[in-house]
Amino acid sequence: MKRIPIGILGATGMVGQQYLRLLADHPWFEITFLCASPKSAGKTYAEAVQQRWHQATPIPDQASQLHVHSIDQIKIALERCRCIFSAVGGDIAREYEEKYAAAGLPVVSNASYHRSTSDIPVLIPEINASHLAILPHQQAKRGWSKGFIVTKPNCSIQSYMLPLAPLHEIFGIRNLMITTLQAVSGAGYPGVSSWDISDNVIPYIAKEEEKSEKEPLKIFGKVQGNHIEAAANICISAHCNRVPVLDGHLACVSAEFKTEPTMEQVRSIWDSYISLPQQLQLPSAPPKTIIYREEVDRPQPRLDRNAGNGMAVTVGRLRPCNLLDLRFVALSHNTLRGAAGGGILNAEILVSQGYLT
Amino acid sequence: MKRIPIGILGATGMVGQQYLRLLADHPWFEITFLCASPKSAGKTYAEAVQQRWHQATPIPDQASQLHVHSIDQIKIALERCRCIFSAVGGDIAREYEEKYAAAGLPVVSNASYHRSTSDIPVLIPEINASHLAILPHQQAKRGWSKGFIVTKPNCSIQSYMLPLAPLHEIFGIRNLMITTLQAVSGAGYPGVSSWDISDNVIPYIAKEEEKSEKEPLKIFGKVQGNHIEAAANICISAHCNRVPVLDGHLACVSAEFKTEPTMEQVRSIWDSYISLPQQLQLPSAPPKTIIYREEVDRPQPRLDRNAGNGMAVTVGRLRPCNLLDLRFVALSHNTLRGAAGGGILNAEILVSQGYLT
Amino acid sequence: MKRIPIGILGATGMVGQQYLRLLADHPWFEITFLCASPKSAGKTYAEAVQQRWHQATPIPDQASQLHVHSIDQIKIALERCRCIFSAVGGDIAREYEEKYAAAGLPVVSNASYHRSTSDIPVLIPEINASHLAILPHQQAKRGWSKGFIVTKPNCSIQSYMLPLAPLHEIFGIRNLMITTLQAVSGAGYPGVSSWDISDNVIPYIAKEEEKSEKEPLKIFGKVQGNHIEAAANICISAHCNRVPVLDGHLACVSAEFKTEPTMEQVRSIWDSYISLPQQLQLPSAPPKTIIYREEVDRPQPRLDRNAGNGMAVTVGRLRPCNLLDLRFVALSHNTLRGAAGGGILNAEILVSQGYLT
Amino acid sequence: MKRIPIGILGATGMVGQQYLRLLADHPWFEITFLCASPKSAGKTYAEAVQQRWHQATPIPDQASQLHVHSIDQIKIALERCRCIFSAVGGDIAREYEEKYAAAGLPVVSNASYHRSTSDIPVLIPEINASHLAILPHQQAKRGWSKGFIVTKPNCSIQSYMLPLAPLHEIFGIRNLMITTLQAVSGAGYPGVSSWDISDNVIPYIAKEEEKSEKEPLKIFGKVQGNHIEAAANICISAHCNRVPVLDGHLACVSAEFKTEPTMEQVRSIWDSYISLPQQLQLPSAPPKTIIYREEVDRPQPRLDRNAGNGMAVTVGRLRPCNLLDLRFVALSHNTLRGAAGGGILNAEILVSQGYLT
Repeated sequence: MKRIPIGILGATGMVGQQYLRLLADHPWFEITFLCASPKSAGKTYAEAVQQRWHQATPIPDQASQLHVHSIDQIKIALERCRCIFSAVGGDIAREYEEKYAAAGLPVVSNASYHRSTSDIPVLIPEINASHLAILPHQQAKRGWSKGFIVTKPNCSIQSYMLPLAPLHEIFGIRNLMITTLQAVSGAGYPGVSSWDISDNVIPYIAKEEEKSEKEPLKIFGKVQGNHIEAAANICISAHCNRVPVLDGHLACVSAEFKTEPTMEQVRSIWDSYISLPQQLQLPSAPPKTIIYREEVDRPQPRLDRNAGNGMAVTVGRLRPCNLLDLRFVALSHNTLRGAAGGGILNAEILVSQGYLT
Repeated sequence: MKRIPIGILGATGMVGQQYLRLLADHPWFEITFLCASPKSAGKTYAEAVQQRWHQATPIPDQASQLHVHSIDQIKIALERCRCIFSAVGGDIAREYEEKYAAAGLPVVSNASYHRSTSDIPVLIPEINASHLAILPHQQAKRGWSKGFIVTKPNCSIQSYMLPLAPLHEIFGIRNLMITTLQAVSGAGYPGVSSWDISDNVIPYIAKEEEKSEKEPLKIFGKVQGNHIEAAANICISAHCNRVPVLDGHLACVSAEFKTEPTMEQVRSIWDSYISLPQQLQLPSAPPKTIIYREEVDRPQPRLDRNAGNGMAVTVGRLRPCNLLDLRFVALSHNTLRGAAGGGILNAEILVSQGYLT
Repeated sequence: MKRIPIGILGATGMVGQQYLRLLADHPWFEITFLCASPKSAGKTYAEAVQQRWHQATPIPDQASQLHVHSIDQIKIALERCRCIFSAVGGDIAREYEEKYAAAGLPVVSNASYHRSTSDIPVLIPEINASHLAILPHQQAKRGWSKGFIVTKPNCSIQSYMLPLAPLHEIFGIRNLMITTLQAVSGAGYPGVSSWDISDNVIPYIAKEEEKSEKEPLKIFGKVQGNHIEAAANICISAHCNRVPVLDGHLACVSAEFKTEPTMEQVRSIWDSYISLPQQLQLPSAPPKTIIYREEVDRPQPRLDRNAGNGMAVTVGRLRPCNLLDLRFVALSHNTLRGAAGGGILNAEILVSQGYLT
Repeated sequence: MKRIPIGILGATGMVGQQYLRLLADHPWFEITFLCASPKSAGKTYAEAVQQRWHQATPIPDQASQLHVHSIDQIKIALERCRCIFSAVGGDIAREYEEKYAAAGLPVVSNASYHRSTSDIPVLIPEINASHLAILPHQQAKRGWSKGFIVTKPNCSIQSYMLPLAPLHEIFGIRNLMITTLQAVSGAGYPGVSSWDISDNVIPYIAKEEEKSEKEPLKIFGKVQGNHIEAAANICISAHCNRVPVLDGHLACVSAEFKTEPTMEQVRSIWDSYISLPQQLQLPSAPPKTIIYREEVDRPQPRLDRNAGNGMAVTVGRLRPCNLLDLRFVALSHNTLRGAAGGGILNAEILVSQGYLT
C-alpha cells in the first residue's frame, strides 16, 4: 500500500512535534509538507526546531531534512500532500484551515475555533464516527469540492467522554459534575512557567470549563440534515485545574443517568467495550480503549498515561456517588490521545470510511 | 496574666512540631510537658527530634531543652500542666486521650478517633462553639471531674466549611459536591514518598472521603440533651486527591441550598463575615477568617496558604454552577488552620468560654 | 530622618517586584518613581503588574497607585528621586543606566553589563566597600557631577564569595572549583518553562559560568588609581546547573589556598565573622552574614534560603577536600541577597559612606 | 538455547522489581526463584508486591504467580536455579551472599558490602572484565567449588566511569573533581520523603562520597596474584547531592590526566568507543555505550536517561577546565545501568566468558 502524503501546519510546536514523532513510521501516512511560523520558514525542520525539540527521542530522520514552508504556501501543499494535520493556534487556525480546505485538502484540526461550527464534526472515532455523514453537506454548503474540516475535541474531555459514551448509549446521561487535574503540557511550550506551578495548583485554565461543558453535547449529538444537532437535556458542570504534572489529564467524575445503572453493569460495559477503531484495526487504535484498574489508587498520571501507547483511557475508583448515581476517576494522555494521537486516529477513520484516499 | 501550662502528646511528629513552633511565643499558653514515642522518651526535645525537625525556623529555645516523657507518664503531666494538645495517631489516641481526660486534663485532640463520638464535639470555633455546651454532659456521663475531650475536624474540610457556614445559616445547604487537591504534609512525615508523587497525582487518600462526607454533618449539628445531633438532609459527595504540593489543601466546591442565594448575597456575606474568634480577639484568630480574591486564578496553595498566618481561608472563583446553585474554590493551610493552629484556636475558645482555666 | 526618594527601573519584573516588597517599609528609602516597559507606561503600578504579581504578599499599598513611567522620562526621575535601582535587563541597562547617571542620579544596578567596566565597582558591602573610592574617578573621567553607577555581582556567586572572603584575606585563595545548583527564579519571569525543568536538571545556564569565573577576581581586586585591578593568580572553574527549586542558589565548593587553613581555623573565622554592614547596623544587614549549620545535610534551599531575611548565607559540610584544601556547601537566596536585597544593601552602604545623601 | 534459571534476592524492592521487568523476556535467563522479606514469604509474587509495584508497566505474567521464598531457603534455590541476582541491602547481603556462593551458586550482587573485598571484583563489563580472572582464586581461597560473588559499583559512578575509562587507558587519570545531582529512586522505596525533597536539594547522601572516591580505584585496578590491586596515584574528590528528579544521576566532572588530551582527541575516542559488551553482542549492551550530545544544555535526566534502553551513558558539554584539563557533564540511568541493568550485563559477561553456564 502506498502511503498517503500529508502535511502539518504548526510543525515546530509541542503538538506538531508529537505529530512528527507519531507519524515517523506510520503505515498509512507519510509526511511530505511542513509549515511553521515565518521565522522558521525556509529552514530545514532540524534547523527550525533546534533548541526547541522537547522530546526524549531524537527528531525522526525522515523529517529532519524536510523544508519548512510558510503557512501561505498552499499551492505547494496541494502539490505535495493529500491531507493536512493542523496543529496551529486560534487565530491562525481560523484564517488558514478554511483556505486549505477550500483549496481541496481535507484538514484534520486540533484547534478549537471550528468546534462550535454546526457543519464541522468534533470527532472521537469510538463515539461519533457517524458524524462524518455531515461532510458532503459541509462541502456542498461551502462550495468545496474535495477539501473539508474535521476537528477533535479539547484535550481534557477525552478521559471521561470515552468511558461515558457506552454508558450514555444505554442509560442516558442527565447530569455530570467534573473536576479536572490537568498537566502542564496541555498549555503548549513554553506554556506554564515553573515559577507559577512548582509546589502549587492553579485552579483556572482560560476557556477550559466552557469547552468542557459544551463540546460533549455536540459529540453526543446527531447529524440532522445539514447540521449536527447537539444532545439536549444533559447538564455538565466543570472545574478545571492545572497541576504540576508533565503529561496526563485526570478527571474526577460524578454522573447521573436517566436510568440508574448498577456498578456491575458499568464494569461489564467497560470490560467488554470494543468500538469501531478496534473493529477496523486502525493503526493508532489501542487494543483496549478503556482500561479499568482495580487498585484503590489508580489511575495515576505518571503510571497510566502511556497505556495503549498513550491512546487508551485508564479508569478506576468506580463507586456510587452520594449525590448523583456514580463516580469514578479517568485519565488520558493529553498530547497523545488528547492531541496528535487523536488527530491521527481521526485521519485513520477518514481513510477507513472512504473520506480520505 | 500567668500563662496556662500545657502538654503535647506526639511532640516530635509533623503536627507536634507545628504546635511547638506556634506555642513558642503564645500569650496564653506555655509548654511544660512533652511526650513522644518510647524511643524518644528520656531525651531532651532537641535530641529526640534531631534530624527530623522539618521546619525552616530552628527549634524554639524554650522547648529544645525540655525533657521528653513517655506517654504513660500521666502523673507527671498532671503535675506539670493543665491542658493537653494531642497530636498522636489513631491507636495511641484511642488509648491515651481518654486516660488523660479521666485523670483530669482537658484534651484538645487532632486525632480522628473521637470525631464520631456523640458527646465529643468536633470544633471549629467560628462555626460551632455552641457545641461546648456538651462538655458537662460528657464529664457527667464518663465520671470525669475536670478533664474532657474536644476534637478538631479533618484537615481538608476547613477550607470549605468556613465559607459555607455563614451561607448554611441563612440559605440552608442541601447538596455539596467537593473535589480536593491535598498537600503532602497532610500525610505526616515521612508521609508520601517522592517516588509516588513527583510528576503525579494520587486520586485516593485512605478514609478521607468518608470523613469529608460525615464530619460536616456533625459540625452543622446541634447539642440535644446529652449528645450532638448531626444535621439531617445534607448530602455530600467528595473526591479526594493528593497532589505534589507541600502545604495547603485546595477544594473545588459546588453547592446547592434550600433557598438559592445570588452571587452578590454570597460575596456580601463573606466580605462582612466576623465571627466569635474575631469578636473575642482570640490570639490565633486571623483578622479576617474568609479572604476573597478577585483574580480569576486564585486561591493558589503556594501564594495563599499563609494568609492570616495560615489561619485564614482564601476563597475565589465564585460563580454559578450549571448543576447546583453555585461553585467556588477554597484553600486553607492544612498543618496550621487544619492541624496545630486549629487545635490552638480550639484551646483559646475553651479559655474564653471558661472551660479551661 | 527624612527618607531618600528613590526610583526603580524595571519595576514590574521579578526583581523589580522584590524591590517594591523590600522597600515598602524601608527606614531610609521611599519609592517615588517607577518605570517599566512601554506597554506598562501610563498605568498605575497595580494596573501594570496585574496578573503578574508573583509574590505571596499583596502589592504594597504605597506603591500600588504610583504612576508607571516610560524609561526615557529621565527628567521626571530627576525631579522625583535621588537614587535609581536598576532591575532592567542587558540591552536596556546598557542604554539607560549611563543616561540616568549622566543626568545626575546614582544608579544601583543589578544588570551585568557594567560589571566588567574597570571604573565601576561590583559591590558586596561585606567584602569590597573600599572599592567605592573609585567613584570620584568614575565621575571625573565621564564628566558626571553627581551621578555614578555601582553594580552588584551575579546572583549565584554571593553564596560562596561571602564565606570565602574572610578566608581569602588570611590564607589567600589560589584555586576554586565550584558547582552550582540554581533556582528557577534566577531566570526571571516567566523564565524556565515547567515543561523543561520538572523531573529534570538543566546542566547549563547561558553566560553563568563565565560570570562566575570572572566577577570574583574583580571583587577581590583593589582600586589602583582610576581603575579597579582584578586579583591575580586566582583560578576558578565553575559548573552551573538549573534545578527544580523555586528560590535559593546552592554551591558545592572546593578551595585551595596559598596557606592551607585547618578546619578549626575556618570555623572560627566564620563563627566570629562581623563585617562593615553589621558594624554600621545597615537596615538590611543580617545579624550574622555567615550562618554555619552543624547538621550533615544542610544547607538546603527550602529550609535555609530565608535565613537572615534572605540576606544571610548558610554554610555547611565543611571538610577536607581530597584534591584541594577544603570543601563546603553554601547557599544564598538569589532574589533577596542575590538581587533586590543585595541592591538595597549596596545603596545603604552608599548612604553610610556619604556617597548618597 | 535453553535459558539459564536464575533467582532474585530482594525481589519486591525497587531494584528487585526492575530485575523482574528486565528479565521478563530475557533471551538467556529465566526467573525460577524469588525471595523477599519474611512477611512476603509464602505468598505469590503478585500478592507480595501488591500496592508496592512501582512500575508503569504491569507485573510480568511469568513472574506474578511465582512463589516467594524466605531468604534462608538456599536448598530450594539450589534446586531451582544456577545463578542469583542479589538486590538486598547491607546486612542481609553480608549474611546471605556468601551463604549462597558457598552453597554453589554464582551471586551477581548490587550490594555495597563486598565492593572493598580484595578478591571480589567490582565489575563494569566495558571496563574491567579482565578482573574476572580473580574468580578461581576467590573460589580456591574460600573453598567454594562452583559459587562465587561479583559485585557492581555504586549507582552514581557509572555515568562518569564509562566515559573516563577509555581516556584513562590512553592519558592516565591523575585528578578528578566530581559533583553529582542524584535522583530519588537511588534511595529505594519509599526512600526520600516528598516533604524533604520538593522545591529542595539535599546536599548529602550517606556514604556516597566515600564510595565515589574509592570504588573507581579498584575498578581501574589490576588482578595481581590472588587479589585486585587498586590503581594508585589517582585522586578523586566528590560532592554528592540529591535533587528532585525521579530517575537519572547526573555528574559534573573535571579531570586532569598525566598526559593532557585535546578536546578533539576526547571526542574522537568517545565517538569511536566500542567495547567488549558490544563486540560480544551481549543482549543488554546498548549499541553505543557513550552517546555524546552536541546541544549546549545536554545531557538532561528526563530527556536522556532512557538512551540505549537506560544502559547508555549520555555525555555533553566537553570543554577545557580552568583548573584541571577538561570538564564535561555525564548522565546514566541509576536503576537501569546503575542497578538491575548493570547486574544483568554482569551476568551476561559471566556467561560469555564461561564463568556461568
